[in-house]
Amino acid sequence: MKKQPLILVSNDDGITAPGIHALVKVMQRIGEVVVVAPDSPQSGMGHAITIGNTLRLDKSLVFDEVESYECSGTPADCVKLAKHHVLKDRRPDLVVSGINHGSNSSISVLYSGTMSAAIEAAIEGLPAIGFSLCDYGHDIDFSHTEEYVELITRQALEHGIPAGVALNVNFPKQSDKPIAGIKVCRQARAKWEEEFDERLDPRGRSYFWLTGNFVNFDKGDDTDEAALAQNYVSVVPCQFDMTASHAISLLNNDWDLNPGVKPPVGTKTVESGLAEG
Amino acid sequence: MKKQPLILVSNDDGITAPGIHALVKVMQRIGEVVVVAPDSPQSGMGHAITIGNTLRLDKSLVFDEVESYECSGTPADCVKLAKHHVLKDRRPDLVVSGINHGSNSSISVLYSGTMSAAIEAAIEGLPAIGFSLCDYGHDIDFSHTEEYVELITRQALEHGIPAGVALNVNFPKQSDKPIAGIKVCRQARAKWEEEFDERLDPRGRSYFWLTGNFVNFDKGDDTDEAALAQNYVSVVPCQFDMTASHAISLLNNDWDLNPGVKPPVGTKTVESGLAEG
Repeated sequence: MKKQPLILVSNDDGITAPGIHALVKVMQRIGEVVVVAPDSPQSGMGHAITIGNTLRLDKSLVFDEVESYECSGTPADCVKLAKHHVLKDRRPDLVVSGINHGSNSSISVLYSGTMSAAIEAAIEGLPAIGFSLCDYGHDIDFSHTEEYVELITRQALEHGIPAGVALNVNFPKQSDKPIAGIKVCRQARAKWEEEFDERLDPRGRSYFWLTGNFVNFDKGDDTDEAALAQNYVSVVPCQFDMTASHAISLLNNDWDLNPGVKPPVGTKTVESGLAEG
Repeated sequence: MKKQPLILVSNDDGITAPGIHALVKVMQRIGEVVVVAPDSPQSGMGHAITIGNTLRLDKSLVFDEVESYECSGTPADCVKLAKHHVLKDRRPDLVVSGINHGSNSSISVLYSGTMSAAIEAAIEGLPAIGFSLCDYGHDIDFSHTEEYVELITRQALEHGIPAGVALNVNFPKQSDKPIAGIKVCRQARAKWEEEFDERLDPRGRSYFWLTGNFVNFDKGDDTDEAALAQNYVSVVPCQFDMTASHAISLLNNDWDLNPGVKPPVGTKTVESGLAEG
């Protein structure tokens, strides 16, 4: 009999969030599950790591019959601690994160603790998927996502995920309409139009709440936003190489970064390097 | 006389760090400076934002003759508050962040609060540069970086930075060798090999310090690591579109994400969308 795959589960809403329980339930059908998740909500933590402070890691009693740990750090810390401490001598076959309470589509991938766990795993050379449901709140319904979480996870285990890539999967909110299917997409060009809600505390000193509206500037029908709007599950392959390759030759050609040096050192070296790569 | 450019300055080491003072000193030669920076160190915060808590923003007395504010939030929060509150009716011509005490080259760009301020500005449609010095510690020497900070900043103001791009600039540590010049680079493929230093607190309970070694897997001579090793200033243009475009067709062709649907919906839609874009 084939050995069961080892699946590491994390999230950013914390180990008690209903979303990670929904995810663990599906993963238990597929393989052996180990959970290392934050001991408190870490939403919006982006790719934060704990370097100026210490980390705690304790065995958790939150899950029945699942080896689980709660960590005082960020989602990225959880994956690092899982890989290098909890699973020191065992290599997970897959890392999954979520299911996030709220959308991580489009630009939200940058702010997302859910995706930072997946991207951290990809940096570590592990196949990884972040799952998010476009529905906020604590007590939300994840039941319609289960079959798609299972399908995508099994496909990832069967076919692998390209090196250096983590998948950002977002689900439409539960509704009367059934999910239309799964679409592989690119990240939509969109942003949050922030507003700050300024208030006075009981001592008369001002403080702010970050609020804002999501604005999609992207009319393409190949984006995650377009897929979600049509009730599809969106899958965006994400990379951690942030180089804007198209801007390299532009900077070399238009800018004068090495005045007095002829021929320009930067241009020659970088272009030959790119051509070779 | 031409109007002075308006330059917003932030960082992640906090408003009292020597690095931001070195940066403000150079920016004062170039334009009108407004500082909005964290009131405490925020290293390793990645692209974290404050959504589950409130933010404070106070006028700062740290800088003489520079309009400055200290904020309780992350570097990304600082840029959001600067754009939407402090500079509500004024558009900065450039956003600069740093100078970071420590390297943000290669994979560190993901963990970097310094770069998150610059990338947040790019998301807001503002030209932005993050500056970092490959030297850790509080009392480090930034003097050799000044002429390069000024040159790069003036070039950015003159030529602009492509939309959706922020520059990640790293300086070699001060040494006997003069800086060799500036190179435009790609992000090196490298990672931190973590180790966790487990200790016992005075009550006998264990805790961890994240430690580790930086490992560069990338032999290319067009990377930021290669440039820094040769005593060049590295400039990596970074984008916030994290889509791994090369993986889209792979997932569409190799994976079976819509079993029972023929012809595969995902494949057709995504590929036509990419071809049009």
